[in-house]
Amino acid sequence: MLPFARIAIIGMGLIGSSLARSIRATMPTVRLSVTDADAHVRARVRDLDLADDVADSAGVAVIDADLVILCVPVGAMGRVARDIAADLAAGVVVSDVGSVKGQVLVELTAALPGIAVIPAHPVAGTEKSGPDAGFASLFAGRWCIVTPPVGADPVAVERLSEFWRRLGATVETMDAAHHDLVLAVTSHLPHLIAYSIVGTASDMETVTRSEVIKYSAGGFRDFTRIAASDPVMWRDVFLTNKDAVLEVLQRFTEDLTALQRAIRWGDGDALETLFTRTRAIRRTIVDAGQDTDADDFGRKH
Amino acid sequence: MLPFARIAIIGMGLIGSSLARSIRATMPTVRLSVTDADAHVRARVRDLDLADDVADSAGVAVIDADLVILCVPVGAMGRVARDIAADLAAGVVVSDVGSVKGQVLVELTAALPGIAVIPAHPVAGTEKSGPDAGFASLFAGRWCIVTPPVGADPVAVERLSEFWRRLGATVETMDAAHHDLVLAVTSHLPHLIAYSIVGTASDMETVTRSEVIKYSAGGFRDFTRIAASDPVMWRDVFLTNKDAVLEVLQRFTEDLTALQRAIRWGDGDALETLFTRTRAIRRTIVDAGQDTDADDFGRKH
Repeated sequence: MLPFARIAIIGMGLIGSSLARSIRATMPTVRLSVTDADAHVRARVRDLDLADDVADSAGVAVIDADLVILCVPVGAMGRVARDIAADLAAGVVVSDVGSVKGQVLVELTAALPGIAVIPAHPVAGTEKSGPDAGFASLFAGRWCIVTPPVGADPVAVERLSEFWRRLGATVETMDAAHHDLVLAVTSHLPHLIAYSIVGTASDMETVTRSEVIKYSAGGFRDFTRIAASDPVMWRDVFLTNKDAVLEVLQRFTEDLTALQRAIRWGDGDALETLFTRTRAIRRTIVDAGQDTDADDFGRKH
Repeated sequence: MLPFARIAIIGMGLIGSSLARSIRATMPTVRLSVTDADAHVRARVRDLDLADDVADSAGVAVIDADLVILCVPVGAMGRVARDIAADLAAGVVVSDVGSVKGQVLVELTAALPGIAVIPAHPVAGTEKSGPDAGFASLFAGRWCIVTPPVGADPVAVERLSEFWRRLGATVETMDAAHHDLVLAVTSHLPHLIAYSIVGTASDMETVTRSEVIKYSAGGFRDFTRIAASDPVMWRDVFLTNKDAVLEVLQRFTEDLTALQRAIRWGDGDALETLFTRTRAIRRTIVDAGQDTDADDFGRKH
């Protein structure tokens, strides 16, 4: 018994197209209707044959669906919800995959009165964008955080959770505000720092751009991967999770200033103590199955 | 005609043991003598059969060598140089693999008067340490920066450059001060930031350590890899390249503060403009062959 029989996906970028592929692979009898605001993306999705129907509008895509998943930038969620409000079937569950949950929850529930809105966030992704970048196994072994509003229908929450488990994810439930703080630490701040450092490096007058590129294997290239993530998606993350990001950023700045002081005063013990502690944290992430222990990320040599 | 016939490696960690393996693979007739200050490492190197001789002291290892490569933390270079000074053969070239070149050049030339000192830095590595972590292809397709002192013997510089080319590296020559600034941008600052953010994340009271680990696939885990690098090696890098690191760090802090302000004031255009620019820089690094374009670093899904 499948949790949902007719699924609509709005937005066919990396996550939306991975969802489509993963649903096809794990629940092949589901009827899958998708759309994207960009006509070129819709054409490409038809070429790739990722769904049963590729609708020209979100309203058409969601008709008859018992699960609608919004896979658009966080800043576009409210608008898309208003677009589909009149076309939703009775009993539908509306969810999303955004990296910010507080504002999404507010906007979706405001736009969709009387509809079961159960936001979710699969903690998975790559630096690539677009329908060609998706793949069916993206969610396997990853976490999906479900953030139901107070008073949500437990049956709807369980159906959505079962849906994600079928895609290979492990489901965790928490409230939206805590999600946004956790992700500010584990995802939003790292992206902000990566974007910032890549900008800094490319603006140095005393080191040429070509030198930055050539010698990037010393560490810089890892930051550029994260800083290659979708610009609009990430703009919206920072604008809609402002408070948590600014709070975590303030903590980071304090810690970095302490490190700066340790370097200036030649306090080698402080540096070595921190560097030893961070190495142990890496170990626990690998042990938890959240990263590979392959040399240098398994890069070919 | 090989550039060197008898090579001594002092320090058999990731880089030293990769050098030994790479020399064996590409120049099998070279006589290879190695040592390490740690008796356990020496025993392991013997077990792994990485060299013709595993000497119990640096002085014994370098006797008769025509190339000596110091593969120890930057802070230990001067001491090791003084240890071997009396045992070096006539005509020997002494080099190293340190991430900082200015201070190493000063210390090696002071400790080894009359000896051809030609510092070098292969821009390659992984987050692993120790003799088991090395592999023969580590330097293939990477850059090696040679920083000869003013007045260095051009024949010695060319022999050392040819040595690195045989290991698969592309050699670039620059002065030590410029090297230290370039690497402060492309390697030292990224490591410092990664160490700092991993420390910040693990110190949050409102987000548990277990949550940081579980949801690390959102970006944080990539920082932990870099922050797992050898603590003593990196302590020494920051202490010996202090001026360049502090200068670059100041630039980074300014840029990050500007980003913080853009978030606080909701300036989405500024964010999107930067994020679009950094994405293009990623493209050039992949095009330059300095990183893989595989999804998510080629991590298994």
